[in-house]
Amino acid sequence: MPQNGELSAFDAATAVRRTEGGGLIADLDPGWDVGGGVLNGGYLLAVAARAAVLESPHPHPVALAASYLRATGAGPATLLVTPGSAGRTLAHAHVVLSDAGGPCLSVQTTTAALGSGEVAWSTPPPGIAPVEECLSAAEQAAGQVDMPDVGIRHRVETRLDPATAGWVTGRPSGEPVMRAWVRFADGRDPDPLGLITFADALPPTLWSMGRMGWAPTVQLQVLLRALPAPGWCLAEARAGEVADGWLDEDYRIWDSTGRLVAQSRQLARAPRG
Amino acid sequence: MPQNGELSAFDAATAVRRTEGGGLIADLDPGWDVGGGVLNGGYLLAVAARAAVLESPHPHPVALAASYLRATGAGPATLLVTPGSAGRTLAHAHVVLSDAGGPCLSVQTTTAALGSGEVAWSTPPPGIAPVEECLSAAEQAAGQVDMPDVGIRHRVETRLDPATAGWVTGRPSGEPVMRAWVRFADGRDPDPLGLITFADALPPTLWSMGRMGWAPTVQLQVLLRALPAPGWCLAEARAGEVADGWLDEDYRIWDSTGRLVAQSRQLARAPRG
Repeated sequence: MPQNGELSAFDAATAVRRTEGGGLIADLDPGWDVGGGVLNGGYLLAVAARAAVLESPHPHPVALAASYLRATGAGPATLLVTPGSAGRTLAHAHVVLSDAGGPCLSVQTTTAALGSGEVAWSTPPPGIAPVEECLSAAEQAAGQVDMPDVGIRHRVETRLDPATAGWVTGRPSGEPVMRAWVRFADGRDPDPLGLITFADALPPTLWSMGRMGWAPTVQLQVLLRALPAPGWCLAEARAGEVADGWLDEDYRIWDSTGRLVAQSRQLARAPRG
Repeated sequence: MPQNGELSAFDAATAVRRTEGGGLIADLDPGWDVGGGVLNGGYLLAVAARAAVLESPHPHPVALAASYLRATGAGPATLLVTPGSAGRTLAHAHVVLSDAGGPCLSVQTTTAALGSGEVAWSTPPPGIAPVEECLSAAEQAAGQVDMPDVGIRHRVETRLDPATAGWVTGRPSGEPVMRAWVRFADGRDPDPLGLITFADALPPTLWSMGRMGWAPTVQLQVLLRALPAPGWCLAEARAGEVADGWLDEDYRIWDSTGRLVAQSRQLARAPRG
């Protein structure tokens, strides 16, 4: 775990700084890639959320919706935040993350103050094997041909439920579901910004149907529902429909106390099976 | 059903016209309100989607994510469409719907060509009573004190599954779920634009927990998955978590052939119970 005063890998990689001119910039980190130098969508969205919080009277992102305009690589980036309406409870803004080539992400953001208080209704977590019985990234990679050694797997530790890991040994379950314990590899505890990255960090659900390859995100919405407790999170990703070259992926994330703390849904392009 | 050459109520109310200066304008229709002169969020999003399609090389909305900046009433509106990236398969844009008071909706849009072809995986529709055994809006209103006579109920016909209609007679199920058959009241068949409105047209799920009142939408994402077949759609709305003054509502919509054709998720403010 990062020591006092030492930035975690995630906080360093998502840092947003203000320039003398008042603009916001970031240095996108090559270590958070999903292969081919392309950065993970959840990582990029966390950078945009940090910019939104910097320009907001409220401390936490609660709703984010991003259009992924093109594949984005490492290097310098600018963040242009256009405020929408702001009130006592929440504030809206529009954030555009651009690199030298132009806009990469266009994001609707809502910020507010998250708590961890009274729950009137909540979806309980699904069943999953204990962490020690789940497959590490190394164990996932060992079983499967042609799985690229992508950076995100070294930054976000996932332990995959054996029930959704049949694809690792060439026996995909046939159901587009992935379920895993998730935490930062350096032990940094989860927070709303971290949950944004967890919400796009599991292997593609199509791998469970034996359709390997990447499914580029078209639009991703993440809702943050509560401040997560320290420790492992449980994430489940599920496709509702795979058809005509498209799929959705629906994530739900529970913290170590079993509280639902984040939800996401993305539309992605489906690789041909 | 509207006759040849006659615009349906929905098409008339969501019409977007180009001005001589090249801008896009609409006349927001007072008939699509949810009470107090405030227009339905799904209706407003369909207007924004129409503007996105007008400025796109592609014919259908496939992903929309809107921040609701403030309550919006009837009257003239402008639509500013800023193109994002565009390719052979899909195009991104950012649409701002404004009235005389300023911006009301800020929307990320993705357009493409929807089909109704091959399905590799799909979520089957839930069980629901036949249309003739479900409760019409008049029957819903008859059973409950203080349900305002809102315009949207006269434009979008909903037939509520008795299993999720206990609140009508003061016996709420306790589970935040609504399930209904849905169609346009004038018989216009569903299409991707219509599905956008269906995706925010059911009574608030909190009514099933006996918590009446409106739940204002903060951010709404709608994904369109296929061209719907003619006839009734089946819509199910479900809250995943109700806590700390917030709730989400997750819609799934199937067409008359049982195909999943749309999904939505919104973050809303929860009225105190």
